[in-house]
Order: sequence, then structure tokens, then C-alpha cells
Amino acid sequence: MGTTKGLLVIAISLICPLALAQESAAQEGSSVSYTADARLNFPGSYREWVYLTSGFDMSYSAAANGSGHHLFDNLFVNPASYRAFERSGRWPDGTVLVLELRRAGADNPLNKQGSFQGTAVVGVEVHVRDSARFAGGWAFYSFGGTGSSSFNTAAKVIPHSADCYACHTAHGAVDTTFVQFYPTLLPLARTKGTLFSSSR
Amino acid sequence: MGTTKGLLVIAISLICPLALAQESAAQEGSSVSYTADARLNFPGSYREWVYLTSGFDMSYSAAANGSGHHLFDNLFVNPASYRAFERSGRWPDGTVLVLELRRAGADNPLNKQGSFQGTAVVGVEVHVRDSARFAGGWAFYSFGGTGSSSFNTAAKVIPHSADCYACHTAHGAVDTTFVQFYPTLLPLARTKGTLFSSSR
Repeated sequence: MGTTKGLLVIAISLICPLALAQESAAQEGSSVSYTADARLNFPGSYREWVYLTSGFDMSYSAAANGSGHHLFDNLFVNPASYRAFERSGRWPDGTVLVLELRRAGADNPLNKQGSFQGTAVVGVEVHVRDSARFAGGWAFYSFGGTGSSSFNTAAKVIPHSADCYACHTAHGAVDTTFVQFYPTLLPLARTKGTLFSSSR
Repeated sequence: MGTTKGLLVIAISLICPLALAQESAAQEGSSVSYTADARLNFPGSYREWVYLTSGFDMSYSAAANGSGHHLFDNLFVNPASYRAFERSGRWPDGTVLVLELRRAGADNPLNKQGSFQGTAVVGVEVHVRDSARFAGGWAFYSFGGTGSSSFNTAAKVIPHSADCYACHTAHGAVDTTFVQFYPTLLPLARTKGTLFSSSR
């Protein structure tokens, strides 16, 4: 459990280093839904959405993660927003980005080096664009990993005072999102002229 | 160019270590098409198919890859076959698995450790199931990377005498495919009872 908790801290820090407090929001988005008390329902079909990229042991911090495990992060976006981005280089309202944090698998005799993804999900983080609902147009949510009480249920919005919002605003290549790390979208945004000039 | 060539050798070796000679096959599959001379047309929409998993620096060999670059591999399957696998734990005819080999991105000041995916694709390998067309039910194809002459065009089938076929038959967890490395499908195949008993 200690190991899982360590990984969760890293997982959350990938989008939002200091956002652990929570508050609520409301209404339904195009690819997500909310509970009566404004929590975001877990977007259970995200693995069938459009895949954008994966990272391996990425971190905002140079400190060792201390978990003893390698960590993959896999990013998905709802298909309609992906197609809108292909056309315009911009995210429309209704965009939902889902970051899945997945522990590397155990050794396998067929694989002589490197890492593959295992079955343990240690966190799921969601970034929703809805300019009518959220200050600044976007909100973050964080779900727990496999077996945790918040996995496959609902999550409260992370308060807009959290550092993740300021960091994404300052460094996001397109509209507070880290398109600089999304290899198929980066050239597209460059062509469309929608890259934030001080990004990267 | 030397670096790219080195990565291509690794890329091909991930599925098929010794398969460099080529021969032809025929007909159209459900998610792929063929040229008049039986080469497989590049499956250009694969990035919108269902994502299965990624590896990082995976290799059948313990030897250093010598490229000086980290390498991600991203695996996709056509959506209809993904849904069929969800129902049955088996791959139907028409299944197309696409393995994209992508070089890690250059350093970025926001990322203090680990690796992210860059824009350079160094190879695309395809595994097609069509029991009416191929001996053993499956065939492999290998496309080059970004900028190579075989990227975004067509590829001849890799001969069934190549080692990749024997290796996948001996070690593939489900029907010659490496489901032991696909974290969302492995538990499903276990539940459905379709895992090859000597796999892993």
C-alpha cells in the first residue's frame, strides 16, 4: 500500500503537483457526465477514445519517485475533439483529456530489456474544457487507481487555485494543454499557427 | 542516417528479427487494402484505432540497441476486432494489429526526468489475420519510418519462413499474438479461457 500511495502522489503531480483539496462543479459535457452533487463520473470508455501519446517515468521533479516501479502515462482524448483539433489546431468546448498512469509490468522472459505496461492502474486524471462552466475554460479531476475507492466512481473538481492551472496556463503549448508532448498534434498546431509562443 | 538505420533494425526485430526478404499475398481485409500486386497499403488511419499498449526500449535481445535514442512502441488494433476480442477473448479474421516505433523526444525543460514521445516514427509493423489468405492465419508486414520510401505507401508480405512466425506461434499468449504484454486484454483472455497455456 505504501508503494501504491507513493505512485499516486507522482501520478497526481504529473498534472497538478499541489492539488489535493477539492470543490464541486456542475452540468454535463459532451463526453462526460456529472453526479447530482457535481462530481465528474469516471469516463469509463476512455480506452476506446483517440490515443495521443505515452510518457515513461516523466516528472516535473528531478527527485527519484521512490516507488520502486517504472510508470507509464497514457493520454487519450474524446474522438470529436480530436477531429476538431485536426481541422483547427484548437480544442473545442467538450474536450476531455484522460491521463492514465499505469505501472510497468513485471519481468517477462521474452523481453530482455526495457519496460512494458502492466495491469495495475495507479491513477486516472481528467482535464475538461467547458468555457461556460469553468473559470479559465478548463477543470482538472483526479481519480484513484485500480482498487481505490475513487476508481470507477466520481471525482470532485480540483480547485482553480491549485498550481496545476497556473502551470498549464504558463507552459501549455496550446490553450493550457501540453501539446509540446503530443507528437501527432504538435506539427499540426505548428501548421495551424495555434502554438503558444512561449511554450517549450 | 546511420542512426535511423540502426533504429529500423531494432524496430523490425521487435516483431520479426530475421525477416528482411519479402514475397506477396492477395485480396482485401476488413480494415486494410492491397495493391494490384498484393502489397499491403499503409493503414493510414491506425492512430484513430483502439490503442492497446506501449513499450519502452523493449527488445528480444539483451544487447544495447546502439542507436543512442530511446524507443517507444505503440500498439493499435482495428476497432471491430477489439470489440470481438472483448466478447470472446479471440481475434476474428480481419484483425489488424499495428505497431508504431517512435523515437523519444529531445529534452524539454518542463520534463525533469523520464522520456516522452517525439515526432520521428522509425518504423510501422503490421500483423494481419485472414485465415483464407495466409498459411497459419496471419501475416506480417513492415513499413519504414517517417521519410523512408516505404512509409505511407505499400509493403510486401514477410515470408512465412521468417522467424517472427515461429516465435509468435511459440510464445504468443493468444493465437500467435503477445497478449501477455497487452494490459487490458490479458485479464480478459484469462477470464475467457483463451490464453495459450505455455505463454509467459
